[in-house]
Amino acid sequence: MVKRSKGIKIATIGGGSSYTPELIEGYIKRKDELPIKEIWLVDIEEGKEKLEIVGNLAKRMVEEAGLDWEVHLTLNRKEALKDADFVTTQFRVGLLDARIKDERIPLSYGILGQETNGAGGIFKAFRTIPVILEIVDEMKELCPEAWLVNFTNPAGMVTEAAMKYGNYEKVVGLCNVPIGHNMMESKILGKKPEELRFIYAGINHHHWHRIYDKNGKELTTEVIDKLFSNNSNIMENIKFIPFIEEQIRDLEMLPCAYHQYYYLTDDMVKKELEEFAKNSTRAEVVKKLEDELFEIYKDPNLKHKPEQLSKRGGAYYSDAACELISSIYNDKRTDMVVSTKNNGALTDLPYDCVVEVSSIITASGPQPLNFGKFKPAQRGLLQLMKAMEEITIEAAVTGDYGKALQAFILNPLIPSGTIAKKLLNEMLIAHKKYLPQFKEVIEKIEKYS
Amino acid sequence: MVKRSKGIKIATIGGGSSYTPELIEGYIKRKDELPIKEIWLVDIEEGKEKLEIVGNLAKRMVEEAGLDWEVHLTLNRKEALKDADFVTTQFRVGLLDARIKDERIPLSYGILGQETNGAGGIFKAFRTIPVILEIVDEMKELCPEAWLVNFTNPAGMVTEAAMKYGNYEKVVGLCNVPIGHNMMESKILGKKPEELRFIYAGINHHHWHRIYDKNGKELTTEVIDKLFSNNSNIMENIKFIPFIEEQIRDLEMLPCAYHQYYYLTDDMVKKELEEFAKNSTRAEVVKKLEDELFEIYKDPNLKHKPEQLSKRGGAYYSDAACELISSIYNDKRTDMVVSTKNNGALTDLPYDCVVEVSSIITASGPQPLNFGKFKPAQRGLLQLMKAMEEITIEAAVTGDYGKALQAFILNPLIPSGTIAKKLLNEMLIAHKKYLPQFKEVIEKIEKYS
Amino acid sequence: MVKRSKGIKIATIGGGSSYTPELIEGYIKRKDELPIKEIWLVDIEEGKEKLEIVGNLAKRMVEEAGLDWEVHLTLNRKEALKDADFVTTQFRVGLLDARIKDERIPLSYGILGQETNGAGGIFKAFRTIPVILEIVDEMKELCPEAWLVNFTNPAGMVTEAAMKYGNYEKVVGLCNVPIGHNMMESKILGKKPEELRFIYAGINHHHWHRIYDKNGKELTTEVIDKLFSNNSNIMENIKFIPFIEEQIRDLEMLPCAYHQYYYLTDDMVKKELEEFAKNSTRAEVVKKLEDELFEIYKDPNLKHKPEQLSKRGGAYYSDAACELISSIYNDKRTDMVVSTKNNGALTDLPYDCVVEVSSIITASGPQPLNFGKFKPAQRGLLQLMKAMEEITIEAAVTGDYGKALQAFILNPLIPSGTIAKKLLNEMLIAHKKYLPQFKEVIEKIEKYS
Amino acid sequence: MVKRSKGIKIATIGGGSSYTPELIEGYIKRKDELPIKEIWLVDIEEGKEKLEIVGNLAKRMVEEAGLDWEVHLTLNRKEALKDADFVTTQFRVGLLDARIKDERIPLSYGILGQETNGAGGIFKAFRTIPVILEIVDEMKELCPEAWLVNFTNPAGMVTEAAMKYGNYEKVVGLCNVPIGHNMMESKILGKKPEELRFIYAGINHHHWHRIYDKNGKELTTEVIDKLFSNNSNIMENIKFIPFIEEQIRDLEMLPCAYHQYYYLTDDMVKKELEEFAKNSTRAEVVKKLEDELFEIYKDPNLKHKPEQLSKRGGAYYSDAACELISSIYNDKRTDMVVSTKNNGALTDLPYDCVVEVSSIITASGPQPLNFGKFKPAQRGLLQLMKAMEEITIEAAVTGDYGKALQAFILNPLIPSGTIAKKLLNEMLIAHKKYLPQFKEVIEKIEKYS
Repeated sequence: MVKRSKGIKIATIGGGSSYTPELIEGYIKRKDELPIKEIWLVDIEEGKEKLEIVGNLAKRMVEEAGLDWEVHLTLNRKEALKDADFVTTQFRVGLLDARIKDERIPLSYGILGQETNGAGGIFKAFRTIPVILEIVDEMKELCPEAWLVNFTNPAGMVTEAAMKYGNYEKVVGLCNVPIGHNMMESKILGKKPEELRFIYAGINHHHWHRIYDKNGKELTTEVIDKLFSNNSNIMENIKFIPFIEEQIRDLEMLPCAYHQYYYLTDDMVKKELEEFAKNSTRAEVVKKLEDELFEIYKDPNLKHKPEQLSKRGGAYYSDAACELISSIYNDKRTDMVVSTKNNGALTDLPYDCVVEVSSIITASGPQPLNFGKFKPAQRGLLQLMKAMEEITIEAAVTGDYGKALQAFILNPLIPSGTIAKKLLNEMLIAHKKYLPQFKEVIEKIEKYS
Repeated sequence: MVKRSKGIKIATIGGGSSYTPELIEGYIKRKDELPIKEIWLVDIEEGKEKLEIVGNLAKRMVEEAGLDWEVHLTLNRKEALKDADFVTTQFRVGLLDARIKDERIPLSYGILGQETNGAGGIFKAFRTIPVILEIVDEMKELCPEAWLVNFTNPAGMVTEAAMKYGNYEKVVGLCNVPIGHNMMESKILGKKPEELRFIYAGINHHHWHRIYDKNGKELTTEVIDKLFSNNSNIMENIKFIPFIEEQIRDLEMLPCAYHQYYYLTDDMVKKELEEFAKNSTRAEVVKKLEDELFEIYKDPNLKHKPEQLSKRGGAYYSDAACELISSIYNDKRTDMVVSTKNNGALTDLPYDCVVEVSSIITASGPQPLNFGKFKPAQRGLLQLMKAMEEITIEAAVTGDYGKALQAFILNPLIPSGTIAKKLLNEMLIAHKKYLPQFKEVIEKIEKYS
Repeated sequence: MVKRSKGIKIATIGGGSSYTPELIEGYIKRKDELPIKEIWLVDIEEGKEKLEIVGNLAKRMVEEAGLDWEVHLTLNRKEALKDADFVTTQFRVGLLDARIKDERIPLSYGILGQETNGAGGIFKAFRTIPVILEIVDEMKELCPEAWLVNFTNPAGMVTEAAMKYGNYEKVVGLCNVPIGHNMMESKILGKKPEELRFIYAGINHHHWHRIYDKNGKELTTEVIDKLFSNNSNIMENIKFIPFIEEQIRDLEMLPCAYHQYYYLTDDMVKKELEEFAKNSTRAEVVKKLEDELFEIYKDPNLKHKPEQLSKRGGAYYSDAACELISSIYNDKRTDMVVSTKNNGALTDLPYDCVVEVSSIITASGPQPLNFGKFKPAQRGLLQLMKAMEEITIEAAVTGDYGKALQAFILNPLIPSGTIAKKLLNEMLIAHKKYLPQFKEVIEKIEKYS
Repeated sequence: MVKRSKGIKIATIGGGSSYTPELIEGYIKRKDELPIKEIWLVDIEEGKEKLEIVGNLAKRMVEEAGLDWEVHLTLNRKEALKDADFVTTQFRVGLLDARIKDERIPLSYGILGQETNGAGGIFKAFRTIPVILEIVDEMKELCPEAWLVNFTNPAGMVTEAAMKYGNYEKVVGLCNVPIGHNMMESKILGKKPEELRFIYAGINHHHWHRIYDKNGKELTTEVIDKLFSNNSNIMENIKFIPFIEEQIRDLEMLPCAYHQYYYLTDDMVKKELEEFAKNSTRAEVVKKLEDELFEIYKDPNLKHKPEQLSKRGGAYYSDAACELISSIYNDKRTDMVVSTKNNGALTDLPYDCVVEVSSIITASGPQPLNFGKFKPAQRGLLQLMKAMEEITIEAAVTGDYGKALQAFILNPLIPSGTIAKKLLNEMLIAHKKYLPQFKEVIEKIEKYS
């Protein structure tokens, strides 16, 4: 990107999100390296009230920091995109109500309900991909040199859709899961993250990693040892997922938190069914948290990111985005884990797909570190998941029912067979407002069911 | 292989199998192209009685055909292997009782129980692979030029183990599933199999195929159309699996019968749980059938393969083996579907693994037809299954518990998590007699459980 | 292809070629399996006289065979293509005079001059590819179901251009070199070709092969032994190229005749320079032979392919084409060596390029046998040659001077540097009549030189 | 590597080299980041005098810098290797006299004579690889944790041999060519190297690169424009190789200096034949330069690296080595171009070969940046060169004459055919003292020639 004398313009789609204060905080923290001129928070009609609340907080934060940045709130996406240097996306099509459906409908069949995995993740892709393709089309016209920093989930599929079907090259997908692991495992090792080197490879929410110290020694096994030791100090301080020790040792890499859905499916289903019964699925909890957060945000005396946001779950997300923006703007060469085009970095996955991999962030975007081949234990599941993603994206773009069903049948969290079809049909109908591409399909289902 | 003036010597490991009469019938049918001198039926002590019964039937069949072939019955495998030209394997470690456990133990957890798929298939591999490696070691010493024609299940994994860990090149895995499809789909199209061309690709019990007519026209979609039409004539004559139409259409290839376990898992579990409750799992049914068969075989007036064998389920198996032997012996270049080394024929799978693929059978063995790349819908599941196979084989060879558990967790028919571990442990204990490689592991489980 | 009741229509582009009598003979030989109705020989204005001569001979041959096939002679290509079932191409853009330039201009720089290799081969591609793309465009309109059987050289590149840039799938490239090797090496082994099995892999005029007998034993080394023995009987009967023994032994495969240009470059240049000096380059010799042949063809009493054609050099070419046509028409599954899409058959070359490889010829076209990986000795040169071909084709399609030069510099038979550029420029000017795509480039060269 | 309290021990094989002062200077420059304790300069008997001269200069340099590092001179390699942390290699088997033969013998046939390319490069590999394998064997015993930093040419092949045949993982190959390009092209762009980002990919002495600025803009074409402009300012300040403009533009990447041998072969042969005639081939010039340098080094008042060393040709070499050592020791994550294992970083080359590629140098060694696929213009030549290297290494390890000849025939700088064999034979005899692996082969040649 060419640095313009006028200062940076950043547009945030879904600006009314509860995450926005962290984003603003992240920019303020980097005020010396990011000469921001304009921040545009854009949202849709239904999000207007939240946009006002969080937008005004953002203005207060910027003012408190003594900065002359302009903070604009708008419902006009095109106005926000016009001449932007960076576009970040954190929108949620259908809001939290859609997420509640993504979680509760599968669980009503005894099937895992989760926002970015299983049936929920597939439907989030179905709702989000048509919108990201619209945004990308507008960007080509209004800010063709801008970088799109996507942290809308499912971040990997959304990024792949924008690249493959939107034909937009300058897209980076971001996720806070790797940062969370870096933090937690540093703590386990009694070190600071910057004293360690992490190598991540896989796809969004489905990656594994290795850890090295400053002497080049691999510490992965040491972390596994500590995780499965009964050291109560460690266990108190970290939120440990009770993976099965023998399997994790065989992996020789550390799984990510989301692997619990794949490595402990049965246990997770049980746990979620309990939450379902108590109307406290994650979406329902988050909805309550969000309502509380926005109450807090309303306080005109609040001029900083409030403590309570950290409970929301997306911690480090926005900070990662700010670091990414700064690393691109300043060619900082930061080592980050991003969703970007594979180009052979992961030998086991298609050349042109999007992977999530340790990369050096340069002024020309992410430069993936080469990873090479996985062991069969990672390779097989990863290849399945990527194929499932490819089919999901194709279904999301075309509205093809056969592909949607195929994605359900391949997904390891959805039992295949008649039940998959029933669940698919019910979810298509439940989300029909946000699935224009499936319009005809849904009408047919409604007619014959 | 060098054709010896003395005539062909064939050794059949598991000669006491109920399949043997079909094998003998196959040889007799090919008497003009196969100058057989000796047939050695070899079995273990526990199979002695059956060996006598079926062996004597074999002798009567050969005599009835007016042939001077020697039929030898022996419990001494080395004697049978000595100077053999072809070795066929159709043994079952642990006999049908082991199969009953493979089916009933998983079902007792509500998990699919099947002989070659899921937990049952993995345990069949664990029991069989050490024995095939023993056989291969003996062959290197006693008949190093002989071809090993394996139809012991899981045929793909057993073949891969013999090649990769046994370092024996001249192994071909055989299965009757493709022949069954050729027969059934020819019938659907109102044609003879020889009027069509079939292209198969995948791995054993997990392959897809396409069909072409003599004008080069692809008929795959036509078969799918007919399968999902409500034409009662077709449905009466074939054993149709109620796959979900939209998914199969998206595949653009025909799945194999075993795909019902993967594409209709939930429905299959229900169906099997019913059989489980009635003590009529497939293994139990087969055991009864076998007992009846051997009663029939005993009849000294029986001099042909009896009709009733066709119900046993392995129809065409032995005939395929005879055709394979003849095609190698005579360089017939028959187009057959076999388990053989990939060497790039299936671009999506590792170069050195075993695949099941349409091949031309030459005097130098199978020459696979190149297949190339699959669509994502096939590719993802196939890659997962192959990785699971590789790990299963490694576990079978090493007795490594972590690998065994990894295979269970990756297997799409076994729910991952605590339940997988419990099931694994129970099955290890149940089969311990046939799992010398897991001896220490099992002792530890028994001690701590 | 759908077999039509009316009988087969075959159109031959370049029908006035001296090869035509062999083609006709081939059809006549297969009269029982090929229900031909019409043969259309089409040529351009400059070839009218030859077309008349050879066309009349064709008519006499058909009549003599007692067949009612219609033989049409025409200068109207579209008329010939209309509703054709098979189109064969054997044209030569620029006639033999262009070939003379392809051979003599490089030799005037001391650089190897050859019809399908080096600078000559690249220029033959430059002249031929635009014409094949025209033909393919017409076929899409006039006979979209027809097979294009190309034996116009450089056959591999012409076939790849028709597939990749012409987007026509039903193209097969044919060459007589493999048949020649089969004949010669059978003779060396004292066997008939049908008693052996040959496996070829590579690209047109740049492939290697292995030989097996009916017992599956590989005879490649035996042939190498005999080739390098001083057995005068063998040497008298075959035209042996004095490859260097140690190198050929290291290959562990037999090279093709054209490898002499790559493995014995220096010796070949010397030999060709002598021919150049005596005005007896191959093109000049062939021109004389052709003139003599057409004199013979004129004889109204000649009703068969004359003996003298065998000296012309293209023996078996047309017969191969007839066999290919019959094998497609009758789904004969003949094992032939053809130029067809790689699709992974040769792991070392790009998936979508054209390779020359042993294939089973079915009604749906060639089904390549999987070959897998080469040893480095073959792999490296082959990969270079394919890249050179890709660039040559791109240059031929686009008229891009940089690509033309790149092809020259990569070609192992053209010394790189200033001399390559000089030679390229001289050849562009010499052939400008047949290089419309390079029009502007050539004008610029002429202006500045 | 584990940082030891005692300080770093570095052993330099070929310590008597004229490069040593630069190495010492490089360490001194990094004294604050490299806690060196011992530097061991080791050489062979024939190099004893030079070792004394340059070793004493090294001691004076260290003393002048006020450092307490021990500088040891020894002819006992094992003593030097014992407990070393880093081993650097800069030896030349056969000294400059062997290089003179590598250059002059090919030129006597009119064939390009060069130290690391063509016949000379192949023979340098033949002489060097047996020695590197000895060193690696000793390292496994005496300092199994040490890093081997190889800058002995041909650096890529020597590194690959140490990894593949020596089974030593901790080897990095280094070369000063990329640094030279960085310097030159920065100058052309009027920028400092640190204001740019360079991406290199290929193999040693055969790589291409791209250039980006701090705004992420690719400047490769801009550099090409300037190189081919007639701007006299640029041309005065850089040593420009007159590549052919149209070809370089088609590459879309910058070639390296050594590409002149491949892209301008004919011109280079002419130039070298002139030098040959005047007895001023590069080896002869260097020999004179070295003699002069050692005269200068003798001066007991000289306490710094003398100016004159920069003319020697290896500038930046040793500095690169020091930076590499520091980057490993301190986990500096410097972006350097090194020879390291491919592991898929370059999709077009074998997974397990050694490539030269932009890498981040970590405490665990080089972490290559993923490069992906080349365009055909680079791909073809690179694949040929790598295959040639693999065969050369195999010949060097085994002493197989067929492989040696194969390497000669594949090498694009050696005309294939009888002449290649003659040249090979003459060079084998000329270098026989340093080719123990070819002993029997050479005796046979001598007997029959």
